[in-house]
Amino acid sequence: MDFEYNERTQYTLTRIREFMDEHIYPNEESYFRQLEAPGTDRWQVPTVIEELKEKARKAGLWNLFLPGSERGGGFTNLEYAPMCEAMGRVSFAPEVFNCSAPDTGNMEVLERYGSEAQKKRWLEPLLAGEIRSAFAMTEPDVASSDATNIRTEIRREGDEYVINGRKWWTSGILDPRCKLIILMGRTNPEAPSHVQQSQVLVDRDTPGITVERNLSVFGYDDAPHGHGEVRFENVRVPTSNIILGEGRGFEIAQGRLGPGRIHHCMRAIGVAERALEMMCKRLLTREAFGKKIADHSVWEERVANARIEIECARLLTLKAAYMMDTVGNKVARAEIAMIKVKAPIMALQVIDDAIQAHGGAGVTTDFGLAAAYAAVRTLRLADGPDEVHRRTIARLEYRKVQTRSEKKAAE
Amino acid sequence: MDFEYNERTQYTLTRIREFMDEHIYPNEESYFRQLEAPGTDRWQVPTVIEELKEKARKAGLWNLFLPGSERGGGFTNLEYAPMCEAMGRVSFAPEVFNCSAPDTGNMEVLERYGSEAQKKRWLEPLLAGEIRSAFAMTEPDVASSDATNIRTEIRREGDEYVINGRKWWTSGILDPRCKLIILMGRTNPEAPSHVQQSQVLVDRDTPGITVERNLSVFGYDDAPHGHGEVRFENVRVPTSNIILGEGRGFEIAQGRLGPGRIHHCMRAIGVAERALEMMCKRLLTREAFGKKIADHSVWEERVANARIEIECARLLTLKAAYMMDTVGNKVARAEIAMIKVKAPIMALQVIDDAIQAHGGAGVTTDFGLAAAYAAVRTLRLADGPDEVHRRTIARLEYRKVQTRSEKKAAE
Amino acid sequence: MDFEYNERTQYTLTRIREFMDEHIYPNEESYFRQLEAPGTDRWQVPTVIEELKEKARKAGLWNLFLPGSERGGGFTNLEYAPMCEAMGRVSFAPEVFNCSAPDTGNMEVLERYGSEAQKKRWLEPLLAGEIRSAFAMTEPDVASSDATNIRTEIRREGDEYVINGRKWWTSGILDPRCKLIILMGRTNPEAPSHVQQSQVLVDRDTPGITVERNLSVFGYDDAPHGHGEVRFENVRVPTSNIILGEGRGFEIAQGRLGPGRIHHCMRAIGVAERALEMMCKRLLTREAFGKKIADHSVWEERVANARIEIECARLLTLKAAYMMDTVGNKVARAEIAMIKVKAPIMALQVIDDAIQAHGGAGVTTDFGLAAAYAAVRTLRLADGPDEVHRRTIARLEYRKVQTRSEKKAAE
Amino acid sequence: MDFEYNERTQYTLTRIREFMDEHIYPNEESYFRQLEAPGTDRWQVPTVIEELKEKARKAGLWNLFLPGSERGGGFTNLEYAPMCEAMGRVSFAPEVFNCSAPDTGNMEVLERYGSEAQKKRWLEPLLAGEIRSAFAMTEPDVASSDATNIRTEIRREGDEYVINGRKWWTSGILDPRCKLIILMGRTNPEAPSHVQQSQVLVDRDTPGITVERNLSVFGYDDAPHGHGEVRFENVRVPTSNIILGEGRGFEIAQGRLGPGRIHHCMRAIGVAERALEMMCKRLLTREAFGKKIADHSVWEERVANARIEIECARLLTLKAAYMMDTVGNKVARAEIAMIKVKAPIMALQVIDDAIQAHGGAGVTTDFGLAAAYAAVRTLRLADGPDEVHRRTIARLEYRKVQTRSEKKAAE
Repeated sequence: MDFEYNERTQYTLTRIREFMDEHIYPNEESYFRQLEAPGTDRWQVPTVIEELKEKARKAGLWNLFLPGSERGGGFTNLEYAPMCEAMGRVSFAPEVFNCSAPDTGNMEVLERYGSEAQKKRWLEPLLAGEIRSAFAMTEPDVASSDATNIRTEIRREGDEYVINGRKWWTSGILDPRCKLIILMGRTNPEAPSHVQQSQVLVDRDTPGITVERNLSVFGYDDAPHGHGEVRFENVRVPTSNIILGEGRGFEIAQGRLGPGRIHHCMRAIGVAERALEMMCKRLLTREAFGKKIADHSVWEERVANARIEIECARLLTLKAAYMMDTVGNKVARAEIAMIKVKAPIMALQVIDDAIQAHGGAGVTTDFGLAAAYAAVRTLRLADGPDEVHRRTIARLEYRKVQTRSEKKAAE
Repeated sequence: MDFEYNERTQYTLTRIREFMDEHIYPNEESYFRQLEAPGTDRWQVPTVIEELKEKARKAGLWNLFLPGSERGGGFTNLEYAPMCEAMGRVSFAPEVFNCSAPDTGNMEVLERYGSEAQKKRWLEPLLAGEIRSAFAMTEPDVASSDATNIRTEIRREGDEYVINGRKWWTSGILDPRCKLIILMGRTNPEAPSHVQQSQVLVDRDTPGITVERNLSVFGYDDAPHGHGEVRFENVRVPTSNIILGEGRGFEIAQGRLGPGRIHHCMRAIGVAERALEMMCKRLLTREAFGKKIADHSVWEERVANARIEIECARLLTLKAAYMMDTVGNKVARAEIAMIKVKAPIMALQVIDDAIQAHGGAGVTTDFGLAAAYAAVRTLRLADGPDEVHRRTIARLEYRKVQTRSEKKAAE
Repeated sequence: MDFEYNERTQYTLTRIREFMDEHIYPNEESYFRQLEAPGTDRWQVPTVIEELKEKARKAGLWNLFLPGSERGGGFTNLEYAPMCEAMGRVSFAPEVFNCSAPDTGNMEVLERYGSEAQKKRWLEPLLAGEIRSAFAMTEPDVASSDATNIRTEIRREGDEYVINGRKWWTSGILDPRCKLIILMGRTNPEAPSHVQQSQVLVDRDTPGITVERNLSVFGYDDAPHGHGEVRFENVRVPTSNIILGEGRGFEIAQGRLGPGRIHHCMRAIGVAERALEMMCKRLLTREAFGKKIADHSVWEERVANARIEIECARLLTLKAAYMMDTVGNKVARAEIAMIKVKAPIMALQVIDDAIQAHGGAGVTTDFGLAAAYAAVRTLRLADGPDEVHRRTIARLEYRKVQTRSEKKAAE
Repeated sequence: MDFEYNERTQYTLTRIREFMDEHIYPNEESYFRQLEAPGTDRWQVPTVIEELKEKARKAGLWNLFLPGSERGGGFTNLEYAPMCEAMGRVSFAPEVFNCSAPDTGNMEVLERYGSEAQKKRWLEPLLAGEIRSAFAMTEPDVASSDATNIRTEIRREGDEYVINGRKWWTSGILDPRCKLIILMGRTNPEAPSHVQQSQVLVDRDTPGITVERNLSVFGYDDAPHGHGEVRFENVRVPTSNIILGEGRGFEIAQGRLGPGRIHHCMRAIGVAERALEMMCKRLLTREAFGKKIADHSVWEERVANARIEIECARLLTLKAAYMMDTVGNKVARAEIAMIKVKAPIMALQVIDDAIQAHGGAGVTTDFGLAAAYAAVRTLRLADGPDEVHRRTIARLEYRKVQTRSEKKAAE
């Protein structure tokens, strides 16, 4: 047992932090200024992003994810996790390093399950940061916590699939650079429920795709990426666009979700760390009732609890990453479920306390805290709500007790 | 002791509810559609509002606040409180009945402390719903929890006051109908701290007033009213615009805040009631893992706790209103502080659970839950943060113990 | 709506408080000293109790419960509730006023459902405080949350019932003055589940009753009353000892539980009030890090929250009592369930904070706080665990929503 | 970074678990039966303990603590921690392995700071398990959270120290095998506050030592060890009994407390693990409302949260142990403070839920849950209350922010 990041992790982590200090933090303001400039199309990408991407790429801080592949940074999940945290401190930073969702998940899928032709056409430009992508899974009309409910139809007609259905929370689809959608839907409605679904690659420009609206999160539109509610009406793609083959949608989804949860959780921890830092700064600089607010013990309690829970969530997430690397996603599923519950709830509490520490400034845009709260709040719903993950954890716990008592009975 | 609303309360309450059923709920969608119509100036008032105001006025459901005055509905705080809750269920409903903040507080101030000329000029059109108003107290550069920190300068020059300073959270100032600002500032910087501040009436159109920006709340701009950050630069008003006289700012603020807190809390309870209703509806209509989500006991727990805490917060708020009516704001200050802490925290929990029950739909605009969360979250900061109110409550509690032991010692 | 206790309540309440000041608090120490005197049988009643009972009786502060009966104090549930709170501040005080569980419940049952002969034999000496009683319902081998599980057999043989079974949490059975057990068991195992159970009166001295052990609560034996685990083996009682008739056990249980819950909750509130008072006193008299602990804001927060939640729980309990008086137990069942959940959880938090404020002294016997915690903790389990009450509340809430939407659909 | 216990830890851990399975669990009942046998002196050690100690000693599972010393098991803090957890599952198990408090702390002190003569006389019989010991630090009359308050006087008279004062929570002093007290007191009242205190070795049989009473924890007397309130009246010890020298009491206390906290926390985690296991078992074996209680989702939530928080607390404690081994107690002080806050609060929640799952059986002695709750509750007070540790953590957090901004300012 060893609690230090290994040398190569520390090396790259240091370089990411230096890059953040030198290039990202100083450009936070200009990013948002460009985005919100009056008269600008809200759905254009601020130019500063592409400039920063160029710098990160030159610095070799690029595609750091993709464990076990030559195309990525060559890091394990455990090694990549703290980098993910570091980038997570600024909302747009992961994109600068070409490590942002949903592209990372889509690239993982293409890398692990894609054909050579699919990789050539989509994975390469994604890895190059030339295009972006979206993932269309959740649907507005069914309880998304149970993926067997997905109803979008992918009907084969000759050498084409014809797609009909409605998706939402298709994040990133409003980004003008988005060229690819990975879509999950039902190819085999008569098959057993776990092999009804498939995933296909859909060119963003295919006729029949209508983004009906952007879904805001709290009051944020999350431009320039957005979250689309999308109608697919007789959208036709060649059969070669299917990933792995018909009926393998769940298998692909499972492979995608494990690393995705680690990434989301580590970014949430980065957000919490930054909120804690802001909270401390604010408390140290304002006075009330004759002394620094920092010295009021009610704030000592909140700061201490924030530190404790951040440490806990980080250690648990790192352990989950370690288990994915060593025993695989399936054995690690309890740990992955645990962090999916723990990290967002922890981060929301820290951010909420930071908001309280900032007074009225906390809910507005001045410190980004309310926006961080909104973003992290969605993590308690996306990729399965808390309730479903707790159910998984509890059932594994019950099984342990049952196995133990069966073993005893057998002795 | 009696837990029924009296007859006149029940009568008016029923009429408000019927009005809501008939006119408000059916117009919720059109209000937001008008507000968000592409090509529309964001800061114009949807026409439906003025139509609804006209209806409410004709129905005699108008100016129901203002206890003890002939100009209001003739209700006590206790009688008005449940009406406030009923209106609070829809964000724009209080305005329809001319019972919305900050106008209500401003009208209370004018009614209780204004001169006849001030009433003539400002109170009458406010009561008629012809103009709206704003209140400029909080400042961005100081800890607003301690009102003695207010720095805006109100300097007398001949028969004018010259105002210089910066305010924020001046809610409603962006509304095109806003014609009056009540501003708190320092007339007597050399006086003892509790008599340094004064309140003056400022015509919105006076030169030197610049709304530098609108402050968003969790991404919401709260158009068409907004929350202004406002610069006052050599703004000149006649000395007759002072309320009560120099140095009486705190006294006026105290008179204003008591009822204001009751109103805010009762509206928050209305919001919580509606969120609970939405939560139940959603849980009853979706299924997961083979049964209605409503029947999963984790949701039974949340629904039950929501019901319990709503009842508690309502009873406590009604008791505070009762005490204001019977023993006055000063004796009731512990109770007022208690509801100011309790009601928003309760409502936030209920709304958050309702968001979770709605899945992705909870954070977007479809059910108004995220917007409700954002609005209620500000109540933990506005009019004194929770921490300051808890301090008040604790100190009164300590005093009770001390008084009791002094009494014993004296025996 | 009116938040004052009426005159007669205030009058009696003041007299109870004066009696407590004069007779109860000054004897707390001697009660426990007598109970714990070395060489004393642990299960003898301290003599001070009977002396105090005599005084209370003479003062007319006796049998204050029993609403609607000439035998009681003539108070409604709402009037009696605050008296219950006042007595609840000291663990043995309710007994002094002949208002302690389970006697109060048993007397209610005899009064409402007993025959004249039953009243003559049992109710009169109970009202006179000459004997005490126990209630045998819960069983160790089944989930007591579902009362249809009760298995103790009451078999008719000629003009006798023969009882066989095992009960536990038969509180008060170890008290040497206990002469009566009211027992619930199954007379009609073939009947529909809600009419299988009956309640019979069992003379404590009947052969076949064995108290197998006393159940401790967090290490406390609760002498001299105790909580028995009791074996009933061919215990024979005359058929005239049945209450109301065969199959009416649930009906009697329902009538008993409503008022019982009000009493328990109000006593728990009394306990919380006293814990808060002790907490404040302690915080005001100790120093750490250069100032009174009371002035550390983390304690201000806990004291304020304690005050808020005590007020909430009290108002809710009073409202439940009011509803029992005005619309009856059945309509008030949501409110009764709510206080059963709210009051103990609230009191446990206040007591736990008081323990923390007292340091090591908090967990020992010096301030009675740990004993209070233990006693209140059982209330989350007795008379139905929290989970069952929350289920009741939630289902009523769902029904409201369903009824409303059915009504709309019908229009 | 590596999350596996190393091979030697796993080896010994497995052997401890096997020993527990074979010898400890099967003797739990007989231990308590012997202790509570009627007619037995409550303060005699059940014979089964000495039999089990003999077995553990022969198995080489003995004195596993004492990192860095030849006298101990040769394990680091990190290696010993999980063993501590394993033993902590049964209240008396640590004693069986001669690894129980306060002996472990006292042995650590003697090993690190004792003279050869002191080691010969006291350490050797302690390591052999022939005698036991106590630690006298906390005093009833002062806020123990601030150790500079300690007032017990250690006055030098010739070649003796004369001790006068009152201590409490002197745990283990009632054990008939207790032969040594390590006492902290003031030798140099005129010196600066951090060098006023010293620690001396006191033979338990020295005249002038009176155990005035045993302090119960909730209702438990914790026989046969107990927690003494002890009067020291002109107790004379030779000056050679001082440890390290006058004025070094704090230094010794610091050296003692770090490992002690790790031990306490890991034992608390063991207690929580066992409570969770019991909870799952119970939930799987009882039914309510037509299905296993385990399948009610409210219990899934509690079980899942228990698993999550246990994992978090364990990882944090292991990290603190790792840091003590690698960078020392001083650098690790934030981590040590964090686990001291986190582990007991976590364990209390898990135990409380387990109590609730067991119904009435939870609060009595049948499953040991209430006793476990009481024992763990003291950990939030002993060795510094939560509030003091949170203060430490917060101040270190503030310092980080300040250092960072000073560094920036300097650049």
